[in-house]
Amino acid sequence: MRSDTPDQAGTVAELGEFNLIQRLTGGRAQPPSTLLGPGDDAAIVVASDGRVVASTDVLVEGVHFRLDWSTPEQVGHKAVAVNLADVAAMGATPTAVLVGLACPPETTVELLDGITAGMWKEATRARAGVVGGDVVSSETLVISVTALGDLQGRQPVTRAGALAGDVVAVCGRLGWSAAGLAVLGRGFRSPVTVVSAHRAPEPPYEAGAQASLAGATAMIDVSDGLLADLGHISVASGVAIDVRTDLLEVNQRLVDVGTALGADPRHWVLTGGEDHALAATFPGPSEVPEGWVTIGTVRRGEGVTVDGRPYEAPAGWQHWR
Amino acid sequence: MRSDTPDQAGTVAELGEFNLIQRLTGGRAQPPSTLLGPGDDAAIVVASDGRVVASTDVLVEGVHFRLDWSTPEQVGHKAVAVNLADVAAMGATPTAVLVGLACPPETTVELLDGITAGMWKEATRARAGVVGGDVVSSETLVISVTALGDLQGRQPVTRAGALAGDVVAVCGRLGWSAAGLAVLGRGFRSPVTVVSAHRAPEPPYEAGAQASLAGATAMIDVSDGLLADLGHISVASGVAIDVRTDLLEVNQRLVDVGTALGADPRHWVLTGGEDHALAATFPGPSEVPEGWVTIGTVRRGEGVTVDGRPYEAPAGWQHWR
Repeated sequence: MRSDTPDQAGTVAELGEFNLIQRLTGGRAQPPSTLLGPGDDAAIVVASDGRVVASTDVLVEGVHFRLDWSTPEQVGHKAVAVNLADVAAMGATPTAVLVGLACPPETTVELLDGITAGMWKEATRARAGVVGGDVVSSETLVISVTALGDLQGRQPVTRAGALAGDVVAVCGRLGWSAAGLAVLGRGFRSPVTVVSAHRAPEPPYEAGAQASLAGATAMIDVSDGLLADLGHISVASGVAIDVRTDLLEVNQRLVDVGTALGADPRHWVLTGGEDHALAATFPGPSEVPEGWVTIGTVRRGEGVTVDGRPYEAPAGWQHWR
Repeated sequence: MRSDTPDQAGTVAELGEFNLIQRLTGGRAQPPSTLLGPGDDAAIVVASDGRVVASTDVLVEGVHFRLDWSTPEQVGHKAVAVNLADVAAMGATPTAVLVGLACPPETTVELLDGITAGMWKEATRARAGVVGGDVVSSETLVISVTALGDLQGRQPVTRAGALAGDVVAVCGRLGWSAAGLAVLGRGFRSPVTVVSAHRAPEPPYEAGAQASLAGATAMIDVSDGLLADLGHISVASGVAIDVRTDLLEVNQRLVDVGTALGADPRHWVLTGGEDHALAATFPGPSEVPEGWVTIGTVRRGEGVTVDGRPYEAPAGWQHWR
């Protein structure tokens, strides 16, 4: 309950800094990992095994999101999701986010409330708190989120531990956000599930800790695209990775959208980013946990291949950025 | 050493995201508190007693700094200092900062390098590492910094613990930044020490842990001005605070600047923010640690007074913001 601020508060300039921060962070139920919530010089968050996992990502209006394509709630959701996914990809359990929000003075409080609501909803889904924030004036709307996580005694899973002989597996959606972006780019608003996947990705946060406990040797969140992000593991680990398309599920919805738009849905699955699935390597098939899908293998060498060959985009493919 | 990027790299758009992040965070010596530095999905930082202290502040060009008044190094320095001061004000020892940098594509790499150098220099002075970062495109230059700190088993010192009978003490400069801003506002560039205090404040980071160990009951960093920030302690603790001007040192340099500009230097000391001194309350005079100066007392009641009376700005005083 934010009873100290009026419901029809107009613009952020009228509301003032203290009320804005209160609006962003105040009066919400914090999870048990929040030892001291917003309102002091700094927050205090559980880091139970003496280590904290931390990552920062910045989203800019017009670059990372469009307010004519996404609701404020979806923007807030996405800003939190992309950051918490990074924490999960280390094998950590999300605990908290801190939000730096720069926005034009004429920004409506309604917009800020929407962003805030989306942040809280997704943070709550991850069992994390919004523990701190700063709201300042800027010509451009910029949302900077720092996510914190707790390894709870688990070994962190970096990008550097993959070994020849490992298998590659993923948990979460691939290609959905890219398909949704393609739909939006053509001026359509449906199918809703695909468009929503772009606007408000739902990373499988718990799969990060699950993979760590199962013995994952390397892990990454798929933000740039499956092949690009497996490329990061390949480089960091000094291994080659081969993805097998016969193991890659292409959901019927993506097939339908691809047909409608004249695009190859498999390309979305292989190269589309922003779904924030988790991709990881495991010592063998028996270590791949439930909910994960094996999609390839790790070999000696370097680079990422698809069915043993370098991947080439479909003829006539237009990169969207 | 950042040997993978050319020295004359032009603009950030030409350099590209991966090289920019590498430039911001890569190849520097990390302190022992950095368990995993930049380059993976997230960093891992020591939080030795199972708790992490975290705070985020955002600085915007034209609002919080001006690149015609400050060098890029000073801007980076300030962005880190204001955040680490928040961590110190909880009684924590700074461990790390994460940086979200949004800047126009035409920003020069030289400017980014300057900001980065200033960040690293001040972080190193605080014995903290720059452990993560994100660099994105934006029409406005926005710097979001999240600072982390380690309580090392100490009790956190919030704003809420001051008790009637406590004494109030400060460590660090007061009024210097305001005097520097007044000098710059009149078009002058000297005295250098005063102007530098505005451009690149040097908070007394170690005094935070020192105060906690000495039994401080409440603490805050002076970012809004001494009276305003003591007001935050007053409200959070439910006490009255009286500042005694006969105990307040007004440095001769501030007296000289005040004389030159026709301003009251004591007003800068009482109300000038951005020096990021620490203000704390202690159970009695014998608990005030070395390097701290006692400036007042805590009483039953509410509000902040100066020599027993509500503070009034000198006649004709022009607020600078």
